[in-house]
Amino acid sequence: MALYVHKYGGTSVGSTERIRHVADNIVKARERGDSIVVVVSAMSGETNRLIALAQEIQANPDPRELDVLLATGEQITIALLCMALHEKGVPACSYTGGQVKILTDRSYNKARILNIDTNRIANDLARDKVVVVAGFQGITEDGDITTLGRGGSDTTAVALAAALKADECLIYTDVDGVYTTDPRVEPNARRLDRITFEEMLEMASLGSKVLQIRSVEFAGKYNVPLRVLSSFTEGPGTLISYEEENVEKPLISGIAFNRDEAKLTILGVPDRPGIAYKILGPIADANIEVDMIVQNIAQDGTTDFTFTVHRNDYRKALEILRSTCAELGAREVAGDDKIVKVSLVGVGMRSHAGIASKMFEALAREGINIQMISTSEIKISVVLNEKYLELAVRSLHEAFNLDQSSEAA
Amino acid sequence: MALYVHKYGGTSVGSTERIRHVADNIVKARERGDSIVVVVSAMSGETNRLIALAQEIQANPDPRELDVLLATGEQITIALLCMALHEKGVPACSYTGGQVKILTDRSYNKARILNIDTNRIANDLARDKVVVVAGFQGITEDGDITTLGRGGSDTTAVALAAALKADECLIYTDVDGVYTTDPRVEPNARRLDRITFEEMLEMASLGSKVLQIRSVEFAGKYNVPLRVLSSFTEGPGTLISYEEENVEKPLISGIAFNRDEAKLTILGVPDRPGIAYKILGPIADANIEVDMIVQNIAQDGTTDFTFTVHRNDYRKALEILRSTCAELGAREVAGDDKIVKVSLVGVGMRSHAGIASKMFEALAREGINIQMISTSEIKISVVLNEKYLELAVRSLHEAFNLDQSSEAA
Repeated sequence: MALYVHKYGGTSVGSTERIRHVADNIVKARERGDSIVVVVSAMSGETNRLIALAQEIQANPDPRELDVLLATGEQITIALLCMALHEKGVPACSYTGGQVKILTDRSYNKARILNIDTNRIANDLARDKVVVVAGFQGITEDGDITTLGRGGSDTTAVALAAALKADECLIYTDVDGVYTTDPRVEPNARRLDRITFEEMLEMASLGSKVLQIRSVEFAGKYNVPLRVLSSFTEGPGTLISYEEENVEKPLISGIAFNRDEAKLTILGVPDRPGIAYKILGPIADANIEVDMIVQNIAQDGTTDFTFTVHRNDYRKALEILRSTCAELGAREVAGDDKIVKVSLVGVGMRSHAGIASKMFEALAREGINIQMISTSEIKISVVLNEKYLELAVRSLHEAFNLDQSSEAA
Repeated sequence: MALYVHKYGGTSVGSTERIRHVADNIVKARERGDSIVVVVSAMSGETNRLIALAQEIQANPDPRELDVLLATGEQITIALLCMALHEKGVPACSYTGGQVKILTDRSYNKARILNIDTNRIANDLARDKVVVVAGFQGITEDGDITTLGRGGSDTTAVALAAALKADECLIYTDVDGVYTTDPRVEPNARRLDRITFEEMLEMASLGSKVLQIRSVEFAGKYNVPLRVLSSFTEGPGTLISYEEENVEKPLISGIAFNRDEAKLTILGVPDRPGIAYKILGPIADANIEVDMIVQNIAQDGTTDFTFTVHRNDYRKALEILRSTCAELGAREVAGDDKIVKVSLVGVGMRSHAGIASKMFEALAREGINIQMISTSEIKISVVLNEKYLELAVRSLHEAFNLDQSSEAA
C-alpha cells in the first residue's frame, strides 16, 4: 500500500467550504487505496490576523510568544479538517507539531527540524486512520513551541515524508504545477511533467513562488519525490525528483526571472587583495543579502565591482557603498534599481555547449543589452534593463522551443 | 513573599487594549512584591467564533477535535499577555495546559484535572518571572488535548493555586464581588467582604454566575482562599474561604434566586414503597435533571409528589409524567413554568432558630403565597409565582437587614 503525504496551503483551506473540498480530495485518494498523512497551513488570512494582534501590543513581538501565538493558526485547521473527514465517515486524528514531536532547535520564528517521532503516526496509519498534522510548527526539547518560518508547512510535509519513507509528498497549491516560465509573461508557458531538485532550486530561488527553497533542499537531501499540484483542479502536476538516467533530459527546463533586485557598482577600485571583502563586509554587517557578484579583470591597477541586492535594500546599500568608496579611494559609485534578472535553468546544459551563445544570440536579435552575466552548472543568468523583461522571456522561450514537450526540445 | 494566582476571564482580555490593562494590573501587584501566576480565558467572542467554524463543518463536532480547536483560544491570550508584559519590561513566560502538564482524564469537552506538574512554574517563579497559563485546557496521559468545560478557566486557576499552595486565588471578572443579592433586583444589595465556600456553593448553584460551582467545590476541597474582584475597578472584592471561629458570623449572607425552573406535580399517587423511583426514574432516563423534590404525607392511601426541573426540560418532563401517571393509576398531572425559587443562604442559620419563620412572616406580610419549601443546613428555599420575585427578594433583603454590614445584622 502506497503512503502519501499531502500538504494543503492556506488558500486551499481558506474557508470551511474549502476544507470540506480538501476532505473530498482525501476521500478520493483513500478510495485509490492510499495511506495518507496530511499537513495543513493556517487558513489564509489567519496568520496575518494573529500578527496584527501581536503588533497592536508589541512592535517587535517577543519571538517565543509569537510562536505560541502563530502556532494556533494551524491547530485550528487540523481540527476542522478532521471534523470534515469524520463528517464523511473517514477515521482521522489531528496532531500539533508538539504532539507528534516535530523536534526543532530553539531558533524561534525560524526553527530547524532535528527529528520527528513517527510512532503515533505509524500506529494511526496501521489502524487505517488519516493523520492530520499541523504544518509550520515544532517543539524544542524543553517543550517550547517553535515555528519554522515562511513556507514552513512545506518543510513539515517533506520532513514527515522523509521520516515516514513516503512514496511521494504531494504539495497541493493554487497552481497546477511548475511552468517553463510565468504564464502571465509568456502565454505559451507549458506545465512541466517533471523537473529535478536542482532545477527546482534554481527556479525557486529566482522567484517562482510555488515551493519554498528550504523544502526543496530538504526533499533533495532525503530523496523525497515532491509533486506540485492544484487543490482546485484535477491533474498530475509536476514531479520534482532526481533525474533518471533513462529519461531523455531536456536541455532547458524553464526560464526564471526576478524583478526584486537592484544593481550597485563601485568603479575604479584599487585592485588589491581583500578588496571584495572590504566592499561586501559592511554590506553583510548591515544584514543585506547579496545575490550576483561580478568583478571583471583589472585595467590600469583599478577594477570595477558590481553586485545585486534586494530592491528594498537598495537605498541602504548605496549609502554604505558611498562611504566604502571614500575609504578605499575608489573613483565613484553607480546604481540602478530598474533591472531584472532572467535565467535559463536546465540540468541538460551541463553536457551541452552552446546554450549560452544561443541565449545571447536570441537576446541580441531583439536588441536587448546584457548588463551582467553569471553562470552556474545548470543556470545562466543575465541582468537586463527591466523594460526588456517580457521581450527577453518570450524570445528565449521560443528560441529553446519550451512551448513544445520535453522530448521534442 | 506571597504567591497569588490571578485569573482573568474573557471580558477582561477581550481586546488588546484590555490585555494591556491586565498587564498593568499585574505590574502593580508585582510592585507590592507578589509572585504571580496568571490564568487567562480566551478573548471574549473567540470561543464562539471557533464553535461556529466547527458547526459549519459538523453539526455535532467530534469531541476530541473540538478540544484541539477550542484550546487555541486561550493559547492566543497567553501569548498576547506575555507580549504585553514584556512591553512593560516584566519577564514573563506562557504555557499551554499541555506544556505545564495539567493532566486530565480523557473526557473531552468536560475533562477533570488529575494532576499538575508544577516544576516549570516553580522554576520560573524562582527566577522572578510572571507565569501565564492557558485556562480551560489540559492534556491526557497520551498527550491528547482536552478542555474542562464551562468555567474551566476558574477550575484551572483554583487547581494551580492548590498545587502551588498559593496564598490566594484572585478571580478577576466584570463584577466587583459577590453581593447579598442581584443588584438589578434589589438596588440596596451590598457587596460581601467575605463568604464561606458552602454559602458560595449555594449562591452559585442558584444562578449567581460569578463563579462556577466546580471551581468553588475544588477551592473548598483544597482550602484555597478565593477572591472575586473586578478587573476594571479597584477594590477588595469578596473573599471566599472557610469560616473562621473568631469572626462574627452573619445569620444570612445573601438571597439567591433562580428563574430557570418549572414545577411538576403528580396528584393522587397510590402511596406504595418505591413510588418516588417510579416517578423520577423515567425523568432521569431522559437526562432531565431534577432540582427540588417535595412529597407530603399520604392521605387516604394516596399522596402528591412535586418536583422542579429546568424550564427547557418542562415540556418533555410533562409528557413523561403523563405516561407515568397512567401507568401508576394516579389521578392527574399538573405543572407550572411560571415559578421562581428564592433562597436565603447563610452559615449562621445553623445555630439560630427562627430564621424560617421570620422568612415566612416577611413573605406573608406582602401576601405572597408559598408553593413549595425545601431546606438544607445553610439554606431555605421557597418556590413562588414568578410575579412575586422582586417583591420577595426586596422584602427579605430588608427583613434580614442585608443592606447593612454583617456585624450589624
